[in-house]
Amino acid sequence: MAYDPSNIFAKILRGEIPAYRVYEDERTLAFMDVMPQSDGHTLVVPKSPAENIFDLDPAMAAAVIQSGQKLARAVKHAFNADGVMLVQYNGPAAGQTVFHFHLHVVPRYADQPLRSHGRSMADARLLEEHAQRIRAALQAG
Amino acid sequence: MAYDPSNIFAKILRGEIPAYRVYEDERTLAFMDVMPQSDGHTLVVPKSPAENIFDLDPAMAAAVIQSGQKLARAVKHAFNADGVMLVQYNGPAAGQTVFHFHLHVVPRYADQPLRSHGRSMADARLLEEHAQRIRAALQAG
Repeated sequence: MAYDPSNIFAKILRGEIPAYRVYEDERTLAFMDVMPQSDGHTLVVPKSPAENIFDLDPAMAAAVIQSGQKLARAVKHAFNADGVMLVQYNGPAAGQTVFHFHLHVVPRYADQPLRSHGRSMADARLLEEHAQRIRAALQAG
Repeated sequence: MAYDPSNIFAKILRGEIPAYRVYEDERTLAFMDVMPQSDGHTLVVPKSPAENIFDLDPAMAAAVIQSGQKLARAVKHAFNADGVMLVQYNGPAAGQTVFHFHLHVVPRYADQPLRSHGRSMADARLLEEHAQRIRAALQAG
Protein backbone atom coordinates (compact mmCIF):
# COMPACT_ATOMS: atom_id res chain seq x y z
CA MET A 1 0.00 0.00 0.00
CA ALA A 2 1.38 3.43 -0.93
CA TYR A 3 1.70 6.07 1.79
CA ASP A 4 -1.39 8.30 1.91
CA PRO A 5 -0.38 11.87 2.88
CA SER A 6 -3.94 12.74 3.89
CA ASN A 7 -3.69 10.68 7.12
CA ILE A 8 -4.24 12.56 10.36
CA PHE A 9 -0.64 12.36 11.63
CA ALA A 10 0.66 13.74 8.33
CA LYS A 11 -1.76 16.64 8.81
CA ILE A 12 -0.45 17.18 12.35
CA LEU A 13 3.14 17.12 11.03
CA ARG A 14 2.25 19.71 8.40
CA GLY A 15 0.56 21.88 11.05
CA GLU A 16 -2.79 21.63 9.30
CA ILE A 17 -4.54 20.36 12.41
CA PRO A 18 -3.62 20.91 16.05
CA ALA A 19 -2.20 18.41 18.50
CA TYR A 20 -1.16 18.40 22.14
CA ARG A 21 2.55 18.51 21.28
CA VAL A 22 5.03 17.51 23.97
CA TYR A 23 8.36 16.96 22.18
CA GLU A 24 9.99 17.67 18.85
CA ASP A 25 13.42 17.19 17.35
CA GLU A 26 14.84 17.10 13.83
CA ARG A 27 13.42 13.70 12.99
CA THR A 28 10.47 13.10 15.31
CA LEU A 29 7.40 14.68 16.88
CA ALA A 30 5.53 13.50 19.99
CA PHE A 31 2.00 14.43 21.03
CA MET A 32 -0.82 13.17 23.26
CA ASP A 33 -3.03 10.32 22.03
CA VAL A 34 -6.48 11.97 22.15
CA MET A 35 -8.07 8.62 22.99
CA PRO A 36 -5.65 7.59 25.72
CA GLN A 37 -5.55 4.04 27.07
CA SER A 38 -4.12 5.46 30.30
CA ASP A 39 -3.26 8.92 31.64
CA GLY A 40 -0.14 10.16 29.85
CA HIS A 41 -0.54 8.01 26.71
CA THR A 42 1.71 9.66 24.12
CA LEU A 43 2.61 8.98 20.47
CA VAL A 44 5.95 9.41 18.72
CA VAL A 45 6.00 9.76 14.92
CA PRO A 46 8.84 10.14 12.42
CA LYS A 47 8.75 13.26 10.25
CA SER A 48 9.35 11.18 7.14
CA PRO A 49 6.42 9.64 5.24
CA ALA A 50 6.29 5.98 6.30
CA GLU A 51 3.23 3.85 6.74
CA ASN A 52 4.72 1.19 8.97
CA ILE A 53 7.86 -0.58 10.20
CA PHE A 54 8.26 -2.23 6.79
CA ASP A 55 8.84 1.00 4.86
CA LEU A 56 10.41 3.12 7.63
CA ASP A 57 14.02 4.21 7.08
CA PRO A 58 16.21 2.46 9.72
CA ALA A 59 17.72 5.78 10.81
CA MET A 60 14.20 7.08 11.43
CA ALA A 61 13.34 3.92 13.38
CA ALA A 62 16.34 4.66 15.59
CA ALA A 63 15.23 8.28 16.04
CA VAL A 64 11.70 7.19 17.00
CA ILE A 65 12.83 4.69 19.64
CA GLN A 66 15.28 7.21 21.09
CA SER A 67 12.52 9.82 21.36
CA GLY A 68 10.29 7.08 22.77
CA GLN A 69 12.91 6.44 25.41
CA LYS A 70 12.91 10.11 26.44
CA LEU A 71 9.12 10.12 26.52
CA ALA A 72 8.99 6.88 28.52
CA ARG A 73 11.17 8.44 31.20
CA ALA A 74 9.17 11.67 31.14
CA VAL A 75 5.72 10.08 31.41
CA LYS A 76 6.91 7.74 34.17
CA HIS A 77 8.16 10.75 36.11
CA ALA A 78 5.25 13.08 35.26
CA PHE A 79 2.54 10.60 36.27
CA ASN A 80 4.46 8.55 38.82
CA ALA A 81 3.63 5.53 36.64
CA ASP A 82 4.50 2.03 37.83
CA GLY A 83 5.58 0.93 34.37
CA VAL A 84 5.54 1.91 30.72
CA MET A 85 4.55 -0.07 27.63
CA LEU A 86 5.87 0.71 24.16
CA VAL A 87 3.60 -0.60 21.41
CA GLN A 88 3.72 -0.23 17.64
CA TYR A 89 1.13 -1.71 15.24
CA ASN A 90 1.71 -2.56 11.59
CA GLY A 91 -1.32 -3.30 9.46
CA PRO A 92 -5.04 -3.36 10.25
CA ALA A 93 -4.75 -6.99 11.41
CA ALA A 94 -2.31 -5.77 14.07
CA GLY A 95 -4.59 -2.94 15.18
CA GLN A 96 -3.16 -0.07 13.12
CA THR A 97 -5.81 2.57 12.39
CA VAL A 98 -3.72 5.58 11.27
CA PHE A 99 -1.36 4.81 8.42
CA HIS A 100 1.61 6.89 9.42
CA PHE A 101 4.13 4.97 11.54
CA HIS A 102 3.62 5.70 15.25
CA LEU A 103 4.98 4.40 18.53
CA HIS A 104 2.62 4.31 21.51
CA VAL A 105 4.17 5.25 24.86
CA VAL A 106 1.63 4.00 27.41
CA PRO A 107 2.12 4.53 31.16
CA ARG A 108 0.90 1.61 33.27
CA TYR A 109 -0.44 1.84 36.80
CA ALA A 110 -0.58 -1.08 39.24
CA ASP A 111 -4.00 -2.74 39.37
CA GLN A 112 -5.41 -0.40 36.72
CA PRO A 113 -6.39 -2.07 33.45
CA LEU A 114 -5.90 -0.23 30.18
CA ARG A 115 -8.87 1.55 28.68
CA SER A 116 -9.92 0.34 25.24
CA HIS A 117 -8.05 2.04 22.45
CA GLY A 118 -9.86 4.45 20.18
CA ARG A 119 -13.17 4.40 22.01
CA SER A 120 -13.58 7.83 23.56
CA MET A 121 -11.97 11.23 23.18
CA ALA A 122 -10.44 12.61 26.37
CA ASP A 123 -11.34 16.05 27.73
CA ALA A 124 -9.33 18.78 25.99
CA ARG A 125 -8.33 20.57 29.18
CA LEU A 126 -7.19 17.30 30.73
CA LEU A 127 -5.07 16.47 27.66
CA GLU A 128 -3.48 19.93 27.74
CA GLU A 129 -2.78 19.59 31.45
CA HIS A 130 -1.18 16.18 30.86
CA ALA A 131 0.87 17.58 27.95
CA GLN A 132 2.15 20.34 30.23
CA ARG A 133 3.20 17.80 32.86
CA ILE A 134 5.14 15.82 30.25
CA ARG A 135 6.82 18.94 28.83
CA ALA A 136 7.86 19.92 32.36
CA ALA A 137 9.26 16.43 33.02
CA LEU A 138 11.22 16.56 29.74
CA GLN A 139 12.68 19.93 30.67
CA ALA A 140 13.61 18.71 34.14
CA GLY A 141 15.53 15.96 32.31
CA MET B 1 16.36 -1.92 40.69
CA ALA B 2 19.86 -3.11 39.75
CA TYR B 3 20.26 -5.40 36.76
CA ASP B 4 20.23 -9.06 37.82
CA PRO B 5 22.59 -11.08 35.57
CA SER B 6 20.90 -14.35 36.54
CA ASN B 7 17.82 -13.61 34.40
CA ILE B 8 17.01 -16.12 31.67
CA PHE B 9 17.88 -13.85 28.72
CA ALA B 10 21.29 -13.06 30.22
CA LYS B 11 21.83 -16.84 30.45
CA ILE B 12 20.84 -17.23 26.79
CA LEU B 13 23.23 -14.41 25.82
CA ARG B 14 26.05 -16.14 27.73
CA GLY B 15 25.21 -19.44 26.03
CA GLU B 16 24.44 -21.09 29.36
CA ILE B 17 21.00 -22.20 28.22
CA PRO B 18 19.77 -22.90 24.70
CA ALA B 19 17.37 -20.83 22.62
CA TYR B 20 15.86 -21.06 19.17
CA ARG B 21 18.16 -18.41 17.74
CA VAL B 22 17.15 -16.73 14.50
CA TYR B 23 19.36 -13.65 14.17
CA GLU B 24 22.49 -12.17 15.69
CA ASP B 25 24.64 -9.13 15.07
CA GLU B 26 27.23 -7.22 17.06
CA ARG B 27 24.71 -5.61 19.42
CA THR B 28 21.59 -7.79 19.39
CA LEU B 29 20.33 -11.37 19.47
CA ALA B 30 16.90 -12.62 18.37
CA PHE B 31 15.26 -15.91 19.29
CA MET B 32 11.83 -17.51 19.45
CA ASP B 33 9.53 -16.75 22.39
CA VAL B 34 8.95 -20.24 23.80
CA MET B 35 5.45 -19.22 24.92
CA PRO B 36 4.36 -17.57 21.67
CA GLN B 37 1.26 -15.41 21.46
CA SER B 38 1.09 -16.25 17.75
CA ASP B 39 3.08 -18.39 15.32
CA GLY B 40 6.41 -16.70 14.67
CA HIS B 41 6.53 -14.65 17.91
CA THR B 42 10.18 -13.61 18.26
CA LEU B 43 12.18 -11.60 20.80
CA VAL B 44 15.04 -9.18 20.20
CA VAL B 45 17.43 -8.43 23.07
CA PRO B 46 20.43 -6.11 23.33
CA LYS B 47 23.72 -7.77 24.28
CA SER B 48 24.35 -5.12 26.94
CA PRO B 49 22.97 -5.54 30.46
CA ALA B 50 19.85 -3.39 30.66
CA GLU B 51 16.70 -4.10 32.59
CA ASN B 52 14.35 -1.85 30.67
CA ILE B 53 13.97 1.19 28.40
CA PHE B 54 14.94 3.47 31.29
CA ASP B 55 18.48 2.14 31.64
CA LEU B 56 19.12 1.04 28.04
CA ASP B 57 21.89 2.86 26.15
CA PRO B 58 20.26 4.88 23.30
CA ALA B 59 22.62 3.33 20.73
CA MET B 60 21.48 -0.12 21.89
CA ALA B 61 17.83 0.98 21.66
CA ALA B 62 18.52 1.93 18.04
CA ALA B 63 20.19 -1.42 17.38
CA VAL B 64 17.25 -3.30 18.89
CA ILE B 65 14.60 -1.50 16.82
CA GLN B 66 16.67 -1.96 13.65
CA SER B 67 16.97 -5.69 14.31
CA GLY B 68 13.26 -5.69 15.18
CA GLN B 69 12.59 -4.14 11.80
CA LYS B 70 14.50 -6.94 10.02
CA LEU B 71 12.65 -9.52 12.10
CA ALA B 72 9.26 -7.90 11.43
CA ARG B 73 9.86 -8.20 7.70
CA ALA B 74 11.13 -11.76 8.04
CA VAL B 75 8.25 -13.06 10.17
CA LYS B 76 5.69 -11.36 7.93
CA HIS B 77 7.23 -13.09 4.94
CA ALA B 78 7.92 -16.45 6.63
CA PHE B 79 4.39 -16.82 7.99
CA ASN B 80 2.48 -14.77 5.44
CA ALA B 81 1.26 -12.69 8.39
CA ASP B 82 -1.37 -10.00 7.87
CA GLY B 83 0.33 -7.62 10.29
CA VAL B 84 3.04 -7.38 12.92
CA MET B 85 2.95 -5.89 16.40
CA LEU B 86 6.05 -4.64 18.21
CA VAL B 87 5.65 -4.57 21.98
CA GLN B 88 8.05 -3.78 24.79
CA TYR B 89 7.17 -3.89 28.50
CA ASN B 90 8.91 -1.97 31.27
CA GLY B 91 8.19 -2.96 34.85
CA PRO B 92 5.92 -5.63 36.33
CA ALA B 93 2.95 -3.23 36.17
CA ALA B 94 3.44 -3.10 32.39
CA GLY B 95 3.65 -6.89 32.09
CA GLN B 96 7.42 -7.37 32.16
CA THR B 97 8.37 -10.80 33.53
CA VAL B 98 12.03 -11.18 32.46
CA PHE B 99 14.22 -8.32 33.60
CA HIS B 100 16.49 -7.99 30.60
CA PHE B 101 15.20 -5.50 27.99
CA HIS B 102 13.36 -7.31 25.17
CA LEU B 103 11.29 -6.32 22.18
CA HIS B 104 8.44 -8.63 21.18
CA VAL B 105 7.92 -9.09 17.43
CA VAL B 106 4.45 -10.60 17.18
CA PRO B 107 2.93 -11.60 13.83
CA ARG B 108 -0.80 -10.98 13.59
CA TYR B 109 -3.27 -12.94 11.52
CA ALA B 110 -6.68 -11.65 10.42
CA ASP B 111 -9.49 -12.83 12.69
CA GLN B 112 -7.10 -14.73 14.95
CA PRO B 113 -6.86 -13.42 18.51
CA LEU B 114 -3.55 -13.50 20.34
CA ARG B 115 -2.90 -16.37 22.71
CA SER B 116 -2.31 -15.38 26.32
CA HIS B 117 1.32 -14.56 27.02
CA GLY B 118 3.37 -16.85 29.22
CA ARG B 119 0.74 -19.51 29.64
CA SER B 120 2.00 -22.56 27.76
CA MET B 121 5.28 -23.72 26.28
CA ALA B 122 5.12 -24.46 22.56
CA ASP B 123 6.25 -27.79 21.11
CA ALA B 124 10.04 -27.85 20.64
CA ARG B 125 9.93 -29.23 17.10
CA LEU B 126 7.39 -26.60 16.09
CA LEU B 127 9.56 -23.82 17.53
CA GLU B 128 12.62 -25.13 15.68
CA GLU B 129 10.63 -25.39 12.47
CA HIS B 130 9.43 -21.80 12.91
CA ALA B 131 12.97 -20.63 13.68
CA GLN B 132 14.18 -22.24 10.45
CA ARG B 133 11.48 -20.46 8.45
CA ILE B 134 12.52 -17.10 9.93
CA ARG B 135 16.23 -17.76 9.29
CA ALA B 136 15.41 -18.64 5.69
CA ALA B 137 13.34 -15.46 5.28
CA LEU B 138 16.20 -13.38 6.74
CA GLN B 139 18.67 -14.96 4.31
CA ALA B 140 16.33 -14.36 1.38
CA GLY B 141 16.46 -10.69 2.45
